[in-house]
Amino acid sequence: MIQILLAKWILPSSEDEPLKNACLVIEKDKIIDIGTQENILPKYQSAEIINLKNKLIFPGLVNAHTHAPMSIFRGIAEDLPLMKWLNEYIFPIEANLKRDWVYWGTKLSLIEMIRSGITIFCDMYLFEEEVIRAVDEAGIKALVGEGIFDFSSPSYGPLEEGFKLTEKLLKNFRNHPYIKIAVSPHTLYTCSPDTIKRCLKIAEKYDAKIHIHLCETKDEIEEVKKRYGKRPVEILNSLGGLNENLIAVHCVKLTEKEIELMAKYKAKIVHCPESNLKLGSGVANLTKMLKTGMEVALGTDGPASNNDLDMFSEMKMAGLIQKGLKEDPTVISARDVFKMATYWGTKVLGFDNTGKLLPGYKADLAVLDLSHYSLQPDYNPLALLVYSAKSGYVSDLMVEGNWIMKNYQILSFKEEEIIEEIRKIKKEIISLLKKKFF
Amino acid sequence: MIQILLAKWILPSSEDEPLKNACLVIEKDKIIDIGTQENILPKYQSAEIINLKNKLIFPGLVNAHTHAPMSIFRGIAEDLPLMKWLNEYIFPIEANLKRDWVYWGTKLSLIEMIRSGITIFCDMYLFEEEVIRAVDEAGIKALVGEGIFDFSSPSYGPLEEGFKLTEKLLKNFRNHPYIKIAVSPHTLYTCSPDTIKRCLKIAEKYDAKIHIHLCETKDEIEEVKKRYGKRPVEILNSLGGLNENLIAVHCVKLTEKEIELMAKYKAKIVHCPESNLKLGSGVANLTKMLKTGMEVALGTDGPASNNDLDMFSEMKMAGLIQKGLKEDPTVISARDVFKMATYWGTKVLGFDNTGKLLPGYKADLAVLDLSHYSLQPDYNPLALLVYSAKSGYVSDLMVEGNWIMKNYQILSFKEEEIIEEIRKIKKEIISLLKKKFF
Repeated sequence: MIQILLAKWILPSSEDEPLKNACLVIEKDKIIDIGTQENILPKYQSAEIINLKNKLIFPGLVNAHTHAPMSIFRGIAEDLPLMKWLNEYIFPIEANLKRDWVYWGTKLSLIEMIRSGITIFCDMYLFEEEVIRAVDEAGIKALVGEGIFDFSSPSYGPLEEGFKLTEKLLKNFRNHPYIKIAVSPHTLYTCSPDTIKRCLKIAEKYDAKIHIHLCETKDEIEEVKKRYGKRPVEILNSLGGLNENLIAVHCVKLTEKEIELMAKYKAKIVHCPESNLKLGSGVANLTKMLKTGMEVALGTDGPASNNDLDMFSEMKMAGLIQKGLKEDPTVISARDVFKMATYWGTKVLGFDNTGKLLPGYKADLAVLDLSHYSLQPDYNPLALLVYSAKSGYVSDLMVEGNWIMKNYQILSFKEEEIIEEIRKIKKEIISLLKKKFF
Repeated sequence: MIQILLAKWILPSSEDEPLKNACLVIEKDKIIDIGTQENILPKYQSAEIINLKNKLIFPGLVNAHTHAPMSIFRGIAEDLPLMKWLNEYIFPIEANLKRDWVYWGTKLSLIEMIRSGITIFCDMYLFEEEVIRAVDEAGIKALVGEGIFDFSSPSYGPLEEGFKLTEKLLKNFRNHPYIKIAVSPHTLYTCSPDTIKRCLKIAEKYDAKIHIHLCETKDEIEEVKKRYGKRPVEILNSLGGLNENLIAVHCVKLTEKEIELMAKYKAKIVHCPESNLKLGSGVANLTKMLKTGMEVALGTDGPASNNDLDMFSEMKMAGLIQKGLKEDPTVISARDVFKMATYWGTKVLGFDNTGKLLPGYKADLAVLDLSHYSLQPDYNPLALLVYSAKSGYVSDLMVEGNWIMKNYQILSFKEEEIIEEIRKIKKEIISLLKKKFF
């Protein structure tokens, strides 16, 4: 079956100009043609035509780092020093974390991600099988991994069980079309070099990605240097961890030399500017990263430290902060940022043939509703996507030819039910903390 | 007539804790009582009760600096050096600016501001009588001023006419309940000291605010120093311009001493972080400003350099950027930012008895719809307002007891008509520029 999506604008990729009054031709899971109405319509006479009218079709966004279940903690405590936030709120709750909370928290985050035009995301948390269950129901794509650290996990227990669980997931999802498994050591201050070595070995055995928080704060670097006499990147390098399967998240405190080293080994970086600012970590040197030519992806980080999963606002922030700090509006462009949030995101996470709307690519796409007041006028669709659009302005989402959301309706989700469950979880969490919440 | 608004949450001001299951009692234009349902309802038996259910009532936001008509330029050219953007796009269009464009551009911006919970804004542009006409139809409050500069204006012509127009507006709107007039010299590099002197004299005569862009970029400071041998603040000071009627916008490049000087004279500052970043101007030292105890307001700047009028994202940015650059999440709080966007905004712009939901204050308020997926769960209404809410999540807006928007319907506006007019204006602008737009 062939579907033709017709719209006022199609933006095929960050490198292409937008096409006006254009058609995208999809056969099963793949794009087979793209062009103007006059050129396309006569060629496919028996196709089903879906007229999206005054809308913009663009490649689905890639949220390359989050902790989706943490939406259950959104706004629970703000403006605190990191350790106070962790010790008084997050850790006491996580010590009592329930599988069900992870499932419903992920569902809540999936509503937001789907409504932000996200077709692929990357997750690291606890009870990741529950994340997988929720993603599978939603029908979008994800790279997920159970967080591994030296101390006992509220989900799998002792470290050894974490390796076992990771291997089990790697085997079970080896051939899944949408879900991939990453080996996910938490950080270099929560995982010893031995733990990292084990993780690298597993990753090598399954040709899997290694997903790790790296050089997020100056405290992290000080702590690692104190323990091992080396900076985090030196340790990873000495263990053979700098390679094209490495997904290093944050990288706020990399030196220019370390960025060059990462680029040389084709290691990947995920930039999370909103979270880095909000937690007081700082600002990564994104312009330097881009100058090396390395592939950098963009992520929202968890909704407890952002406090949303809106990739539009993350794109805007990624652009604005570099322009402002370098005092030069030309230092990064909407095009650069859009590339990070689409094609480069797919490359960093290892999803093939997606991230562009061109023949041969998978039909992973989102539709921006240009009737919104803050998207007027439409001189430049790319500028609207990066600098003006918001979560909630996406009307339709498709993954491999299947509609996930159609005319603002998420097909497989009962949103009211999810929000009702979140209300119950909120009450359980409050009673657990024994703190006054107004 | 007495109205009682009943809602799950009411946040009376940045200093108060939110009230749960609370009532706000409004008589005509004023708030006369606030409290829990049990306490309030028995006291006002014959009042009309409006049940807003699972919503949050908060003081209307104040957008303390914008150029509302410039929404007609949104996204027209991006990622360019400032002078190229001005010379190749903005100035050629503004030389041919039509009164009607200003009117419809303002209407478009008003949709966005109302839907962002804004009850008061401050505007500087050309043909400000058209801005006033649009604001008057919308029913919200504004401080507006015709931009004054030494060269000929596309609206009033030679400088002398600018002074006349300003005085005419000051006289005509002396007793208007919602609309106030500011004297609005553009900058110290477009207005000579003589022009500034004339502006100060007019402001003194009418006890009016002076609204000026100040120390936005390093180029501005260099240019002013080259011409007059002094920094912008020194010039203003020598002319007697530092006083409590001064509304100085941007102030990115103020030294700590200059900030202290401004504070000493009770001059006001409007902080516009998104625009400052996007144009590559830099980041104002907001934490230093707050430390002096001076009143600092928040503004979006014009939608051509932001690219929206969303005060929620401006609040979030104001908080995040200071936390990130100072590498300390405690350096500024949601409470600080909310104060800037509400009560301090009203003080900076000179609107009395508003900005808080307490007895004696005007009933200028907005209602956040907490059913949105990205506002779950609601541990902390203030955190949701500052870190998670977005333009479009506001369902209702009231100014002095009158509903401006009710259940997402802006009562006095036909939005489709406005968007249709903007489409026509876009075509006229494109034909004027003789540039290719896809």
